Parts: sequence; structure tokens; C-alpha cells
Amino acid sequence: MNTYGSLFKVTLYGESHQKAIGVVIDGVPPGIKIDESIIQADLLKRKAGAVGTTTRIEEDAYEITSGLFNQHTTGSPIHIMIENKDVRSKDYSALKKHPRPGHADYVAHVKYQGYNDYRGGGRFSGRLTAALVCAGAIAKQILPFKITHELIQVGTLTNLEKLDEYLEKIAEEGDSIGGIIQLKTSPLPMGLGEPFFQKLDAEVAKILFSIPAVKGVDIGTGFSGITLKGSEFNDPILDASGKTKSNHSGGVSGGLSNGNPLKIRVMVKPTSSIKKAQETYHKEENQTKTLEIKGRHDVCIARRIGIVLENALALALVDLYLLNQTYKTFSKE
Amino acid sequence: MNTYGSLFKVTLYGESHQKAIGVVIDGVPPGIKIDESIIQADLLKRKAGAVGTTTRIEEDAYEITSGLFNQHTTGSPIHIMIENKDVRSKDYSALKKHPRPGHADYVAHVKYQGYNDYRGGGRFSGRLTAALVCAGAIAKQILPFKITHELIQVGTLTNLEKLDEYLEKIAEEGDSIGGIIQLKTSPLPMGLGEPFFQKLDAEVAKILFSIPAVKGVDIGTGFSGITLKGSEFNDPILDASGKTKSNHSGGVSGGLSNGNPLKIRVMVKPTSSIKKAQETYHKEENQTKTLEIKGRHDVCIARRIGIVLENALALALVDLYLLNQTYKTFSKE
Amino acid sequence: MNTYGSLFKVTLYGESHQKAIGVVIDGVPPGIKIDESIIQADLLKRKAGAVGTTTRIEEDAYEITSGLFNQHTTGSPIHIMIENKDVRSKDYSALKKHPRPGHADYVAHVKYQGYNDYRGGGRFSGRLTAALVCAGAIAKQILPFKITHELIQVGTLTNLEKLDEYLEKIAEEGDSIGGIIQLKTSPLPMGLGEPFFQKLDAEVAKILFSIPAVKGVDIGTGFSGITLKGSEFNDPILDASGKTKSNHSGGVSGGLSNGNPLKIRVMVKPTSSIKKAQETYHKEENQTKTLEIKGRHDVCIARRIGIVLENALALALVDLYLLNQTYKTFSKE
Amino acid sequence: MNTYGSLFKVTLYGESHQKAIGVVIDGVPPGIKIDESIIQADLLKRKAGAVGTTTRIEEDAYEITSGLFNQHTTGSPIHIMIENKDVRSKDYSALKKHPRPGHADYVAHVKYQGYNDYRGGGRFSGRLTAALVCAGAIAKQILPFKITHELIQVGTLTNLEKLDEYLEKIAEEGDSIGGIIQLKTSPLPMGLGEPFFQKLDAEVAKILFSIPAVKGVDIGTGFSGITLKGSEFNDPILDASGKTKSNHSGGVSGGLSNGNPLKIRVMVKPTSSIKKAQETYHKEENQTKTLEIKGRHDVCIARRIGIVLENALALALVDLYLLNQTYKTFSKE
Repeated sequence: MNTYGSLFKVTLYGESHQKAIGVVIDGVPPGIKIDESIIQADLLKRKAGAVGTTTRIEEDAYEITSGLFNQHTTGSPIHIMIENKDVRSKDYSALKKHPRPGHADYVAHVKYQGYNDYRGGGRFSGRLTAALVCAGAIAKQILPFKITHELIQVGTLTNLEKLDEYLEKIAEEGDSIGGIIQLKTSPLPMGLGEPFFQKLDAEVAKILFSIPAVKGVDIGTGFSGITLKGSEFNDPILDASGKTKSNHSGGVSGGLSNGNPLKIRVMVKPTSSIKKAQETYHKEENQTKTLEIKGRHDVCIARRIGIVLENALALALVDLYLLNQTYKTFSKE
Repeated sequence: MNTYGSLFKVTLYGESHQKAIGVVIDGVPPGIKIDESIIQADLLKRKAGAVGTTTRIEEDAYEITSGLFNQHTTGSPIHIMIENKDVRSKDYSALKKHPRPGHADYVAHVKYQGYNDYRGGGRFSGRLTAALVCAGAIAKQILPFKITHELIQVGTLTNLEKLDEYLEKIAEEGDSIGGIIQLKTSPLPMGLGEPFFQKLDAEVAKILFSIPAVKGVDIGTGFSGITLKGSEFNDPILDASGKTKSNHSGGVSGGLSNGNPLKIRVMVKPTSSIKKAQETYHKEENQTKTLEIKGRHDVCIARRIGIVLENALALALVDLYLLNQTYKTFSKE
Repeated sequence: MNTYGSLFKVTLYGESHQKAIGVVIDGVPPGIKIDESIIQADLLKRKAGAVGTTTRIEEDAYEITSGLFNQHTTGSPIHIMIENKDVRSKDYSALKKHPRPGHADYVAHVKYQGYNDYRGGGRFSGRLTAALVCAGAIAKQILPFKITHELIQVGTLTNLEKLDEYLEKIAEEGDSIGGIIQLKTSPLPMGLGEPFFQKLDAEVAKILFSIPAVKGVDIGTGFSGITLKGSEFNDPILDASGKTKSNHSGGVSGGLSNGNPLKIRVMVKPTSSIKKAQETYHKEENQTKTLEIKGRHDVCIARRIGIVLENALALALVDLYLLNQTYKTFSKE
Repeated sequence: MNTYGSLFKVTLYGESHQKAIGVVIDGVPPGIKIDESIIQADLLKRKAGAVGTTTRIEEDAYEITSGLFNQHTTGSPIHIMIENKDVRSKDYSALKKHPRPGHADYVAHVKYQGYNDYRGGGRFSGRLTAALVCAGAIAKQILPFKITHELIQVGTLTNLEKLDEYLEKIAEEGDSIGGIIQLKTSPLPMGLGEPFFQKLDAEVAKILFSIPAVKGVDIGTGFSGITLKGSEFNDPILDASGKTKSNHSGGVSGGLSNGNPLKIRVMVKPTSSIKKAQETYHKEENQTKTLEIKGRHDVCIARRIGIVLENALALALVDLYLLNQTYKTFSKE
């Protein structure tokens, strides 16, 4: 349940207000040189600070307790731990009785029969993605291609020059707003993906939907291609490398990377925690009641989530990369 | 790679032009009464025949060789096999040298180093989804809620009364067109989904993207919610059942079913095989060249794919349903 | 539950008296040339016929329905099916009420709540091992080393020249007897096995204990080494190949193959089905009662089980071989 | 590779001389009351101190960083970490060139291409079993039956009253000795085990062989039953609970628990690290050479390993217990 991958296996643990969150990364080949500054840099990108992001700024000091020796991977599992320090548990206690709409508060209470650690959203907190970012920063050092992310839309805004101004206004209203992130890679080697159930696009969609707040994923032209005919949508192949004239397919044919850049769009919903009053079910009183959420929250989580999506994508790709290598190499013997 | 699920495990095998395709379903609880007419009815829904669908109409006679005894599941794996009968291998031989754009022909050749069975698309053929439909028809008989699908858009057409006419025109052009399918369920019990990596939406997205031709999946309001603010997007909870006033979340909060109907949109691209000439890479001549595809193909695969998506969804849901039961029941002891 | 392996995945299905048993083999690298005569030869070795083996002699005609093309593996799952033909269901019906000691009859009835197909032992029948033998015969064609098996003891007999005579006498008594099989390989490449939980000896023990009638497994000197001191038990390394002077470790150090031949002993219990009368619980009468088992049974299943153990071992080894290749090859890039 | 279990999943990490070892336990049902004194007590049992055990006595102070809230499990993964404190890395550096016979030193060097952390045996150290003991101490609090272990033989000694004396003599010789541990449970509920590949005995054998130094496992009468005939070996069933007159089967029929106590014997080899000089391969000099091992080692690891085997067994049993519950409960609906 908390493990992802078939060869490069990532196991996440932790809850927002317990001692620590962390990740165990199994199946890392030995002898990979690890540059820790990449982990640090990626954690920094995830950090709050810009307009529209929360004022709960964690230090996010990670510690690697095993799996590295002389700056190289040993072939043993890598364990990375991040302590929870800036924890204010008092902010959340009232929400147990009056669950927040759009959050997992209520359903988690039912599923775990009241035993879940509800403080700060518990295991449903975006906080856990810090550990995932660390794992992705390791994965990217194994992959022979680049991954980038870009925020391409926030609310009605597609030109993002005036983003700060736009978000300040929404913050003043005590409201929040969603965004769309585009993920891209340099051209992938052909053949990543293992049909029928580990296709490239299926694994990518799975791991991206695992990230809190994601509500849509499409590949290449995706939903926008609904009006295109086959003769327009098809990407004619140009040469032996698999390069295509257009890239409506987003780099994926039949669930396999086809030699072109991967192109994915991810819909991120507006942050559920808003200051504005909401009329919603109160458990003790067994009727709806006005809820006002306090605490420190992002107005636009889409502004911070890009690196999380990028590194999540890296986890899906590194696993398929290792799988593809296994079979490719074997046949050469 | 070809197995899906952690408790209810589905293993698919087969290639379009070999002797048979089939599925092994493991982890089915004993004592479930199986109505075979549901399997037959679902296979019929997948069948071609309507305007815009292929004239290769398979008999799709399935055989259950194990796992059922006196019309009930035994607790042993169920094996369902469908022989490949209406096979015309000659149609495809030329495509080995001149791979079709939008298909896996070329990338499969590279990945499998020329050893793949390329006839009829081999394992990348939509044909394999017939076995998946059978498995889903078993899954639906275990689930205590209903799943339905609806074709809501084809090309520019959102009112689908004139669909036959519209597709006939595209067929005349030798072209193809995509569509959007909406999947819905009756209200799910609360708590299906296992964070962090087996969340409900993540599993649903994974299995839907496994189906050939799918290029986008969103949940609830999905991409259309980009302009909504948090105060609009959030679904206020109304009562103890988890029922919400609106359903922008599509029935999923924090990766868990929240007691409301599941609502998913799936983008299906236009069929890649078109009659219209295409300019694309020819392997032997090592340059682009005009390709004219013969054979029997769907103009609008979206017209047949609904039951495949519905039953694929059932596979994701039944697995999460069993997982949720395990933990829910345990604590009661 | 019915799938074994992490890269080379074997899924077994079938029950003794249903239409068929079979196996799906996933994760087979493409381009392996398959010699079907090896499958046929191995099935023949498993077949009854010698003194002390059952007179139910199945034809064991297998059919490969997918995954092979021009005598080579395609990279798609291989499905092999064997129909159940020589089935005499009447022999078993009485045993439902009067379960046989040493068999799974009673516990299977309880576990599957009466829904299991009890005829011929259902899924607990040794019959399923025929499908496993087929899968192992594929696996052996991928491995670069040899596996052999030898019956080294039957009852009190360690010199097996008079085995026929010995078993005839036990058959006359209406009784049965167990045996010990020794499995050996030519020297394995160093490093097969993935700690902590996929160690070579752990995987080998797991798959061997999966075979019905196995009650003990030891590696190298095993239990016989209880009186040896460390200075005697340790195998001094002789050269860079890992070759050791003695082989008390049976070719395994720290859960990894150490460059020497693998050496395993397997204890096979006496066949549970005996003609001799037994006093055991009768369900309907809810008290013990004399049971006389009819039907065709082996006096010494150890005489037929060798090839099953050999091919089961091949399944464990091929999976670890592929895993080891993945990481070994990767680092070379 | 470092994860065990299908529902109750245990992931181990750590190397002997890095910062920490630890375990992530996933799939723990919510609401289980955890008594931490059991973890502490089990770690104490594993601790060195008695005659014949190492003088490297770790403090083994564990920390639970997540998954518990108000002394109950939350349903989130439990992470337990043990820091490595009493580390003397200098003791081991020479062994890199002159690998110890019976250890994984040499084969690990080859497998991980020199990148493994060789200090103190790295991931092959018995040290990792401390984390496994913690996980097992959690597992035992979920199971409704008892598990015990007993040392029944050390070298030639089956009456163990004079064990201290016996081991002191072996210690004086600079040698070591193995032992046999017997594991027993109170009667298990019927039906634990999931054929074909998750049978009770197969899972038990797998996890026990995962523990360093184990070279043999048998169930019930096991290897000792080689001379028994079927009429002697078969355990007649006495009543509806599945209780049998004898227990040659060790509580397992057809890979399922049959309602009787589980009975397992485990062969533990003599500790490989001995003071006595050994003639073995030296890598740099590329020839055999006398090796004298320094450092603090156990003379008889069998004296400490019992609690490790007991708790490893608990991990196999709790996973099968949860699996059995899933299917059992389901059918009742």
C-alpha cells in the first residue's frame, strides 16, 4: 500500500505531526554516485515562501541513515528521514468534530475507525511529499534524460507574469485557486513501459494521482485532442530514432515510450483549506454548521507542487527504465 | 507486468493472431454465485457492429476451464480463455517494414528486438480487452454497487443523436475520430483506497490508462475546474453518510471514496488505423514514404470501448474493496 | 497467491477434475529459442509407470497458446494448458464426508466453506505440478547452468538397487513410504540472491515447500552438520572464482550463490492415500470411523517427484538470475 | 527484495556500521493496542551476554517515529529505528582483502562490485535481525495464538544442562558450534496458508531461511520421518476442530494449518567467525593464506537466534492470518 515500484521500490512512512516522515528506497543499483546537493535543491523548490504559499516553513533537514558509502550507493536500501519540527498541534484539534470539506478528515475518521492521527491531516498531509521529493532526487541521478516542470495556468491566468498580484487578491478573499502543471522530458529511449499493466502512461498516471490535490492527468494533446481526426492526431514517424513530426501522443505509443519527449499535463485543484466560511456537517451536532478554518495554508498549492510531480514522475520512469534494461540486456547474451 | 491487483489479481495473456487470449483471476473469494449471462452480455456490448466499428467481428466464445463448481467460485483461480478464430494474418505482413503512425508497431519492434508477434498488433491489439471484459464481469458480481458508462462526446458532437450520420461522413473521408466516455457508480461505501500508493483515484487512473487509446483521465470536475475557487470547488458534507452538496471531487477525497458516486471522464483518441494516405518512415528504405492502411478498422473506437473501461474500473474497485474489508473487519474482532 | 516470482512470474491455475490446468509465464525475455522436446521429456519423467507409482496415467498433452513465434519467445506471456482427460470423479465423492488423514480434504472444506472442488483433491492434487514442470522446462532453457535431481533414500533404503522389490512389498501391505531427493547444479555464477528477503536459499526453500508432500529442506550439509565445529563446517575459498575446498554451505553464503554447485536435500513424506484401513473422523457421524481409500495412488511419490522439484528449483533460480543481471548490467553503463 | 509480506508488509533497511538500521511495517490494521514492553523484552532476549555469545553488546534503543497514536496503531506504516552506536570499524578493514570463509564477504564484494559497505558484514550482519525482532513483536500482538522457541540441541548435546561448560570448552579451542531450535505454536485456526505459492510451510521456510546462519528447516517429524510408512506418518483426525491423534505433519496439511500446533525445527550452523587459524584465499596476493579473525563473536549463535526465529515466524503467520481473514469474512456477507 505504501510501496511503489517493482525493481526500484519506494516505501513512504510518516504522519504530519508525529516524530518523522521518511522513505526507504530499495532496488537501487550499486555504484551510483549521489550528489546530495540535488536532494537539498529539490527540497528547497518544494518549500513554501512565495506569494500564495503557506507560512508553515519546515526546515526539512533530511538525514540519510543507510545505503550510501563513500558517496556511492551500496546496493542496500537507502533510508532518508526528515524530522517533523515546526508542529503546532493545537491548530487542528477542533476539526476532528467538524471535518473540512475537500479534505480526507471525515472519510479517514470512518476508514480508520477513529484511530488515525488526525493532527495536521496525518498521513494525508502534503508534508509526506517531502520524502517523495528526496526519493525522486535519487532517481533522477540514475536516469540518462532530463525532466522539467512548468506551471502553465492558474485559475483564468495563462500568462503568469501577474501571478503574485492575482494570488494576493484571492488570498484577500480568503479563498484558493488551482493550476495546471506541464511535465516534460528530453527524448526518452524507446521501449520504456511493460504491457499490459505497467504501461508507461499508466504508471505515470498512477504516481501523479497519488500526489494530493491532483484531479486530472492527460498525455500529449490529451483532452484537447477531442476534435482532431486521426489524420491530424497521428504523429508521422520521421526516422529510425522514432522521432515524430508532431507529438500529439506525448511520447507514448501503445504504452511504450516512442523516442520522443514525454509530455504530460496535471490538473491541481484549489487548496481545500480556505479562510472563507463554509457550511458543512458537524459530527457532534449531527447537522451542518458554519466552519472557519484557521492555521497556515497555501492559497495556490500548484505553485509548490511542480517539483513533487517532477520527482514522482522520476520514480515511475526509473522503475520502467530498470525493467526495460533487464530484458534488453538479457537478450544480448 | 501482466498482472493487476493485490488481492483480486488479474493476469492477462495472448496476442491477436495466436491460438488464444485469456485471463487468470486469482484471489476470488469462494462461494460467489456467478451468472455467466453477464459475461456474455458484456462481451456483446464490446462487439463491433454499429456504424463506425470494424467489420472483423469475433465470435468471442469464451470457456471457463477452472475455478467454478456448481455455479459458485471455489476459491481457486478462475481461468477464462477465448480462442482467436477470425484471423486474417495476410493483412498485416507489409506493416512490419512500414510501421503505422500512432501504433506500437515500430517501438514494439525495437523493444522486443524483432521477436514480437507483429500480426494484428500482437499483444498491443485491442483484442486483449475481450479477456479483460470477462474478468470485469466477474468482478462486478462481487461489488455491492453499480457501474455505468456513457459516451458523452465524439469529435465536436456533444449531442449524440446524429452520431451515425457524423461517423458515416468521417468513414467516407477515410478518417477516424475520438470521444469522451463518462464512468459513474452508485454511491461507494466510504474508505475505498489505500494511501499512499493505492489511492482510489491512482488505481483507477492506472487501469484506465492501461486500455489502448486512452489519453486522458480526470476525476469529478477535473480539468474543467481550473477556473473554480476553493469556495466553489469544495463539496460541503451534508450528513453522516458523507453525502456532499456538490460532487466536484468526483467521489474521492484524499484518495479515498467519500460516500458519493464516483465520476470519471476518459479521453479516447481517434483510431490510429485510417484509410487516408499518411507520409511516414519506411524501415527498409530508411526514409518517409506514403502508407495506405488496408484491413477492417473502427472509425470511432470510443463507440465500443465503454464496456471495456467500465469493466476495467470494476477490477480496480474490487481489489480496493477487498483490501478495505480486510482492515475494516479485522478491527472488529 | 498463485503467482511466483518478481521478474519471471509464474501463475498456476486449475483443479484436478475440472477442464484444464495450466500456467501463464510472464517476464520471459524475448528472443529465447525454445526447444519443445524438453517440455515433453520433462513431462514424461513426471509420468507414472514405474513400480510404486499410480495407474492413473494422464496423457499430459500440453498446448502453448501464446508467447511463442517462430520457435522464439516474443516477450509476451507464455500460456501453457493441459486438459484433464482421464478423470474418474466417482472415486472421490464419499471422501467429502470422511476426509482422508494427511490430506487437505478436511481443512480445505473448512477454509473454502464447502465451495472447493473436492474431486480428486481439487487444487491440492499433485496434478497441478504438471503445469509447473512445463514452466520449469522453459526456465531451464534460459539458465546457463545445469540442474539435476537424484533419489538418494527411500524408507530405510540408501542403496536403491532393490527399490522395485522394496516398494512391491510395501504395496502389498497397502502402505506407502517416503524418500529423500538431492538436487544439484553445476557451479552457479556468484551473486544470485537478493537480501534481505529474496535470498537464494530462502527462495529455493519456499518453492520446494510449495510442492505437495515436501516436509523438509536443507542446504549443503544441513541438519547433518549439527556436530561439526566452525573450523570443520567453514568452506575455505581457493581462488578468485569463489571455489571452495569443501561445500558444507551447499553453494550459498549470506543468501547468495558463492560460485560453487548448489546442493539441496528434500524430504518427501509417504503418500497419504493408502489402502490400509485408518481410524479417522467422519463428519456426518461426528466421530471417528474406519476409512478404506480406493482409487489409484502412488506407493512412493518420491519416485516421481524429482523432476517436479528440479523444475521448481529452476523457477526460483531463473527469477534470481534475471534480478542479478539487472543490477549487474546496470552499473556497467 | 527487502520487503516481506502481501498484506502485513515489512521493509528492512540498514547496514551494521552505518547510522541506523530499521523497519517499516505497512498494512497494520488500525486500533491495535501496542504494548511496547514486549518489543523491549524481545530485544533483550536477542541480546548477547550469556556464555558463548559476543561481547559486542548493543544498547538496541529503538524509536518508533510514526504509526502509533495514543498507544494504538493508526493504520499508517509504523517505522521503528535503532541507531548503531557501539561500532568499531577498525576491526574489519583487513577482511576486505582476505575474505572470511563461511561469510558473505567475498561474494558480496563481487555482487556489488566493490561498492558494498563491508564494515561489520554490512547488510549481511546479524545486526539487522534486531529490527526484524521489533517487527515480530508488533505482529505477535495481532495474532490470537502463542509462539515459543526452544534450543533442543547444540553440537552433540541434546541435554542442555551442561551447555555453559560445553561452550566454554569450544571457546577455548577458538572454535564455534551450531544448534537446532524448535518452534511451536498453540493450535492455529484452520486454513492459514494460500495455495499454490503462499502455503503456510512455504512462507515459514522462506522467512526462516532469510535469517543468517539457518541451513535447514523441517516441519513436524520432517527428515526424521524417512523410515515411517504412510500408516504411521498419517495423523488420524479426531474431531471437528481438526485435532489429530499424532502430529507428524507439524500442523500443516496441503500447505494449510490444520487446527493443530505448528511444529518446526531449524538447523543453525556454527558461527563462521572463529579465532582458530584458517587457510583461505587472499585477494591481493591471489592465493590462499592463513587468516586469523579478531573481534568479538558468538561461539554459538544458536543461543541468541531463538527469539529472531520466533519473531520471523510471527511475520509469516500474521500475513497469512490477515489473508485468510479477508476471504473468510468476505463470504459471510
